[in-house]
Amino acid sequence: MGQSLLSAVVLGASGYAGVELVRLLAGHPSVTVSALSADSNAGKTLGEMYGFFAHYSGSSAPAPHPSPTRAPLAGAGHGVDNSPAQGFRATMAQLAAMPLVRTNAIDYTGVDVVFAALPHGASATTMIQLLEQWPHLRVIDLSADFRLESADVYEAWYGITHPAPDALKTAVYGLSEFSASAMPNAQLVANPGCYPTTVCLPLLPLLANRAINPDHIVIDAKSGVSGAGRGAKPNLLLADLHSDFYPYGTANLHRHRPEIEQVLHSADSRVTSVTFQPHLLPIPRGMLASIYGRFAPEFVVPADNPSASQDKTLARAHALLSEAFAATPFVTVLPLGQTPTLAAVRGTNHCVIGLCGSHDKGGKNTAGSSFVDDRFVIFSAIDNLIKGASGQAVQNMNLMYGFAETEGLDAPPVFP
Amino acid sequence: MGQSLLSAVVLGASGYAGVELVRLLAGHPSVTVSALSADSNAGKTLGEMYGFFAHYSGSSAPAPHPSPTRAPLAGAGHGVDNSPAQGFRATMAQLAAMPLVRTNAIDYTGVDVVFAALPHGASATTMIQLLEQWPHLRVIDLSADFRLESADVYEAWYGITHPAPDALKTAVYGLSEFSASAMPNAQLVANPGCYPTTVCLPLLPLLANRAINPDHIVIDAKSGVSGAGRGAKPNLLLADLHSDFYPYGTANLHRHRPEIEQVLHSADSRVTSVTFQPHLLPIPRGMLASIYGRFAPEFVVPADNPSASQDKTLARAHALLSEAFAATPFVTVLPLGQTPTLAAVRGTNHCVIGLCGSHDKGGKNTAGSSFVDDRFVIFSAIDNLIKGASGQAVQNMNLMYGFAETEGLDAPPVFP
Amino acid sequence: MGQSLLSAVVLGASGYAGVELVRLLAGHPSVTVSALSADSNAGKTLGEMYGFFAHYSGSSAPAPHPSPTRAPLAGAGHGVDNSPAQGFRATMAQLAAMPLVRTNAIDYTGVDVVFAALPHGASATTMIQLLEQWPHLRVIDLSADFRLESADVYEAWYGITHPAPDALKTAVYGLSEFSASAMPNAQLVANPGCYPTTVCLPLLPLLANRAINPDHIVIDAKSGVSGAGRGAKPNLLLADLHSDFYPYGTANLHRHRPEIEQVLHSADSRVTSVTFQPHLLPIPRGMLASIYGRFAPEFVVPADNPSASQDKTLARAHALLSEAFAATPFVTVLPLGQTPTLAAVRGTNHCVIGLCGSHDKGGKNTAGSSFVDDRFVIFSAIDNLIKGASGQAVQNMNLMYGFAETEGLDAPPVFP
Amino acid sequence: MGQSLLSAVVLGASGYAGVELVRLLAGHPSVTVSALSADSNAGKTLGEMYGFFAHYSGSSAPAPHPSPTRAPLAGAGHGVDNSPAQGFRATMAQLAAMPLVRTNAIDYTGVDVVFAALPHGASATTMIQLLEQWPHLRVIDLSADFRLESADVYEAWYGITHPAPDALKTAVYGLSEFSASAMPNAQLVANPGCYPTTVCLPLLPLLANRAINPDHIVIDAKSGVSGAGRGAKPNLLLADLHSDFYPYGTANLHRHRPEIEQVLHSADSRVTSVTFQPHLLPIPRGMLASIYGRFAPEFVVPADNPSASQDKTLARAHALLSEAFAATPFVTVLPLGQTPTLAAVRGTNHCVIGLCGSHDKGGKNTAGSSFVDDRFVIFSAIDNLIKGASGQAVQNMNLMYGFAETEGLDAPPVFP
Repeated sequence: MGQSLLSAVVLGASGYAGVELVRLLAGHPSVTVSALSADSNAGKTLGEMYGFFAHYSGSSAPAPHPSPTRAPLAGAGHGVDNSPAQGFRATMAQLAAMPLVRTNAIDYTGVDVVFAALPHGASATTMIQLLEQWPHLRVIDLSADFRLESADVYEAWYGITHPAPDALKTAVYGLSEFSASAMPNAQLVANPGCYPTTVCLPLLPLLANRAINPDHIVIDAKSGVSGAGRGAKPNLLLADLHSDFYPYGTANLHRHRPEIEQVLHSADSRVTSVTFQPHLLPIPRGMLASIYGRFAPEFVVPADNPSASQDKTLARAHALLSEAFAATPFVTVLPLGQTPTLAAVRGTNHCVIGLCGSHDKGGKNTAGSSFVDDRFVIFSAIDNLIKGASGQAVQNMNLMYGFAETEGLDAPPVFP
Repeated sequence: MGQSLLSAVVLGASGYAGVELVRLLAGHPSVTVSALSADSNAGKTLGEMYGFFAHYSGSSAPAPHPSPTRAPLAGAGHGVDNSPAQGFRATMAQLAAMPLVRTNAIDYTGVDVVFAALPHGASATTMIQLLEQWPHLRVIDLSADFRLESADVYEAWYGITHPAPDALKTAVYGLSEFSASAMPNAQLVANPGCYPTTVCLPLLPLLANRAINPDHIVIDAKSGVSGAGRGAKPNLLLADLHSDFYPYGTANLHRHRPEIEQVLHSADSRVTSVTFQPHLLPIPRGMLASIYGRFAPEFVVPADNPSASQDKTLARAHALLSEAFAATPFVTVLPLGQTPTLAAVRGTNHCVIGLCGSHDKGGKNTAGSSFVDDRFVIFSAIDNLIKGASGQAVQNMNLMYGFAETEGLDAPPVFP
Repeated sequence: MGQSLLSAVVLGASGYAGVELVRLLAGHPSVTVSALSADSNAGKTLGEMYGFFAHYSGSSAPAPHPSPTRAPLAGAGHGVDNSPAQGFRATMAQLAAMPLVRTNAIDYTGVDVVFAALPHGASATTMIQLLEQWPHLRVIDLSADFRLESADVYEAWYGITHPAPDALKTAVYGLSEFSASAMPNAQLVANPGCYPTTVCLPLLPLLANRAINPDHIVIDAKSGVSGAGRGAKPNLLLADLHSDFYPYGTANLHRHRPEIEQVLHSADSRVTSVTFQPHLLPIPRGMLASIYGRFAPEFVVPADNPSASQDKTLARAHALLSEAFAATPFVTVLPLGQTPTLAAVRGTNHCVIGLCGSHDKGGKNTAGSSFVDDRFVIFSAIDNLIKGASGQAVQNMNLMYGFAETEGLDAPPVFP
Repeated sequence: MGQSLLSAVVLGASGYAGVELVRLLAGHPSVTVSALSADSNAGKTLGEMYGFFAHYSGSSAPAPHPSPTRAPLAGAGHGVDNSPAQGFRATMAQLAAMPLVRTNAIDYTGVDVVFAALPHGASATTMIQLLEQWPHLRVIDLSADFRLESADVYEAWYGITHPAPDALKTAVYGLSEFSASAMPNAQLVANPGCYPTTVCLPLLPLLANRAINPDHIVIDAKSGVSGAGRGAKPNLLLADLHSDFYPYGTANLHRHRPEIEQVLHSADSRVTSVTFQPHLLPIPRGMLASIYGRFAPEFVVPADNPSASQDKTLARAHALLSEAFAATPFVTVLPLGQTPTLAAVRGTNHCVIGLCGSHDKGGKNTAGSSFVDDRFVIFSAIDNLIKGASGQAVQNMNLMYGFAETEGLDAPPVFP
């Protein structure tokens, strides 16, 4: 590429994840967005669909002549930025006006990288066709279609015969913090699911060190509603949901479960099954998993008394987490006992992890004072649309092309 | 009492739970509220503090003369309800204007029952004094002060030496569905905590039947913010909390844990310790617990294949729950696999319970097909201010005095 | 009817207004709901569509045998309410299970009153057919189809040629507080729109007394999102709307404007046009109008100085409002200068009205001290689904049949 | 300053506006923040008070040694960003750890510019002392203390005798779009209030061109709750406010009114008094004003028929607005008839303006077809904490020091 910008295309640009991708790429100094697709909204523009895009072009009206009469103090805009919008603003204005086209209407000749935010099933078929026709492309796929290693498992959980089982072997699973070394050579990246990202980041270092009893992992996860997409359903209306909260994907049958199990199994083959239960939060975005487990007996640090053993074991686990992510810009391991909040990660690519043990002050469990309480809870929080989808996709692109990992991804949350 | 109304007093009437009590008692056909206390707000009225009370008196202005001129169609109110407000409206108007007094300024001579919604610690001291001075009173205490059987456990968790350890032995724990027989003779009722109510209702029938492995109970609970009371703290402001979500009471140290363990232990003495982790929902009210466990090996129903065994075991557990609550008006056991929502219980005294198993479609856990998956999740939802506090207090009063259990407590939620 | 219950049918029972009607009628002591229609949801039940209905039947499982083993404390439900659900609970259980049928599948032979919550246009056609075929019926129509007196105006604003212009002359406009005398003989009641109810209640007494300058009425209104119905549109999703707020129905073209103007014109024929601008609040329900105006010159009370004149004029206006609603149970006129909140009316049939003047402390308008500031603001708040739709429909039914006006409508809000 | 960075200090850094300033300055390429003050929170850090600051330092734990055992895939962070955090991240990490000190504990020797987000009253006293002791400083004051030109008006509305009436004459009112020319030489900038910013931006170009009847300006404004600051009051708790909405600052007595009148008067001296009524929205941030008015008779464009006259007048007004802001980067004038939303400006420094007329379709006002409807509504939306406070302060700094006006202020909103 030399000094030139990387040419990116976003497929499925009009959904929540797609718009988030476009927003992030607009601020990326090394990328230019060449085309946007949105099959059902083809012909529209993001400026028409999302007000905030349009505002970056400034006033849409032409201003050829100065205002004929003007009070002394009323000289709006005099002397400032009379030039056309530049840099970020120009990019946003351009993207706001770029027509959304059909996926197959794009000429991929000069395109470098494709971000696909298409529905499951459709994505695999489209990506395989694209890569056959335009073998120079590199693809970051945000659907579930290339995440599972096994076509059988994919079929069992998604009800679709996988159209390209061979691609499952060459696709690189893009949990950025653990895939950095594979990214520079990846052609097809399977961007992880939001729940697997939240859950696996903190568990992988512990499992890799055999710190956890593999039989008792219980994941209680909660997600903001943007994870359900922008398809209009009555139960996702503000009127219905505004003060509600409930579980979904029950009976351990949410589709992210086999993905979680696959990733955890890769770190500790003794892990075969987890309990995974998602819930719907009445907020637009944010995802928090409370992960309950027990330390492996061999990981528990011996000590003179149970309390000291417990403290040492927790410190050891905390050190593993801290070390694993010491050099990663987007994963924060909080001091032992501190816990994350969604507000502090919303709008960012961060994953914030907290580790707590199980302590006691007496009760029916007073007998407990004579044994080591091996229970722990890990809290892991992300923004489901950023680290859980589009932000991690950009992070993966950064790793693929050798950009700084944080490029285009540094923004603090808007709080409150 | 004969035909006369029961005379009730509400102490701590200006907090969220207190106001809820007053609202519920206002609609109770067999009760009259004789006095309201609120130490820090003494001198005010609920009508001044809570707009909705004031509105039940109708227009506050006197209307001695008819309007001098009036258009033909503009005859507001002609011919209808010209009489002073009656029944419920009159009660609300009266309560709106009733001055809040200090607890010790009330003459309890003609009072029958005291509802105490006072802070922990202060409540025990006040209640003991009250009962000494006015031994004819019956008390329903909404604080934590009489819930724990052991003064030592109370001191360990609340940091206060209990002022009346003997009262802990005579107080009746008022989980209404399981305390009905003790209520008619109870003088001092310890109204359960909101989390213990949510958690124990579904677990008691299963534990009583030895259905659950006592070592693997994990409770992930979520509560609306009214549970934190009306004390103004920056982190409870709408601006801070509107799109947030996070755990609190971490390290298994929330004060409702020993209460939960005590109740569960009473049904199955093998239960000594549970994992209990609460979270804060960005909504005013509602509480949902996701309770993870494993069936006891002896409870698992043998069958030709694991799947059949699993199905039969789940059905057996579901039958236990259904039977336990078949005759209770406020506990709904949903059909197997269905789950509750907060919106459907908000504003009601209902507890809605759902039971789910853990099924599979293949994955890293394919080996699993040869064993019986003994995992289950129970979802239990209540309104924390009603069934979790003031509603259960009224329910207990109904049981104490032989009123119909649902009296004053039948109202559907306002939805959406 | 004698002692028997009034038989009511709810058409369009599965929308927000329909469900609200069913909820209110379920608690009405003089009414029984005989049938529910919902064309697009025919075949379903409200229990399936709205969780809270189902919960009123208690546990859905049969409980023929006592639980085989049971711990001493675990006797859920013993001795209490073993009888089948009665009264309100039985009614709710019955309604939860009542199948939704098509409108034309109902036999109206024994039916007394029809509540129609059908879409505009369809409602008029259906109601006319119904009344022709079953002339004994009385109808309360919640659509806009019978509110406007002029078929031409209806066609101009709704884009539909009115199917029964004659019915516009016989239909009674049901702003309850001003229609009481016409209700006993009304066969077809046009239930007012939510905005017209909010706006006209406080303005009518003032206009009837020529208190207001007819040329400067500006109405800035805000509504919770349930007013938009339960049709799923992306812009009404919680994710989109959670922190948003914006105007709609701009250019003074909201369809409730001609209805407002017609009603105001009936009280003061000098009123021909108002400015009416609605906005969408990111909450499920509630409606507040801020109504800006100027007192009529002849209404301004002369006095020695402008400030005294202003005070006397405001007091006079406030007295008009207070007197107009002194005998109405659902309209509260707050003391001068106090203002309503949505939280205090949500879930109730109340309209709460506040009147404020325009005072000054100095500024560019210091010259103002020599003239009487004739400006006022009226704030009027209702629950759009109750007083703005279903509650007022029930109130009208009460007036039609001579029931107490508040019957079935007394419930305080759930707060917080 | 040459190539060096501008040294800025933020006083009152721990409130909502202060934190917003720090967040924005952290991303500003030409500024370094040298000190932060917060009197009541002195000794704390923003990292302790606001989670999102802390996360920018990455893992807080030291990581001296590589993890002893590690699975092949579990190499978190390998090869990427092993260097210490740089640029923006380093700045955020530094600010997160910077101790908050008392205002008088700062050495201003090398400081260039002071941002003061202090309470009204205290700010004036402190700023005057600062400028006396350190005359090289330039100050941007976010309080109301230097906004009003008249000490008498200040005293009348704020109840405080102004400590430095002379400074009111030299302070520059910083409504950026209209103050650009005065900024390079300003030493003391009075940053406008949030409501005056929202209201005056669209009105100034119209008033300067005598387009508006000065006697009928009615402003109905709505603000998110962060405008009330982070002081904990029960009525601002999420539990109280979550589904509420209500007016405040009634009787035309909100303190921003004299500021609005002063600014509007400067553009058209015939404006002496406006009606200004704010309301509280149950969302954290965002501000929308609906401004009702009439065009001045001389501004109405003659035409053959009323409708054509109306269209031409609206187009003329729209052209004035469009021209006034054509060269301003942060003000968007929407096409005629389109309206802004809060979601599209939240998190940005944008002001988005919509203009609508008043059209008709017939009704009681059919006589209206013979006259020109001179009414209009302007909608103006900002983020109250950015363009309404901290963002405009940074924009003013950019203008004072000759930076690009958008520097540090370009970020699209996080949506949804």
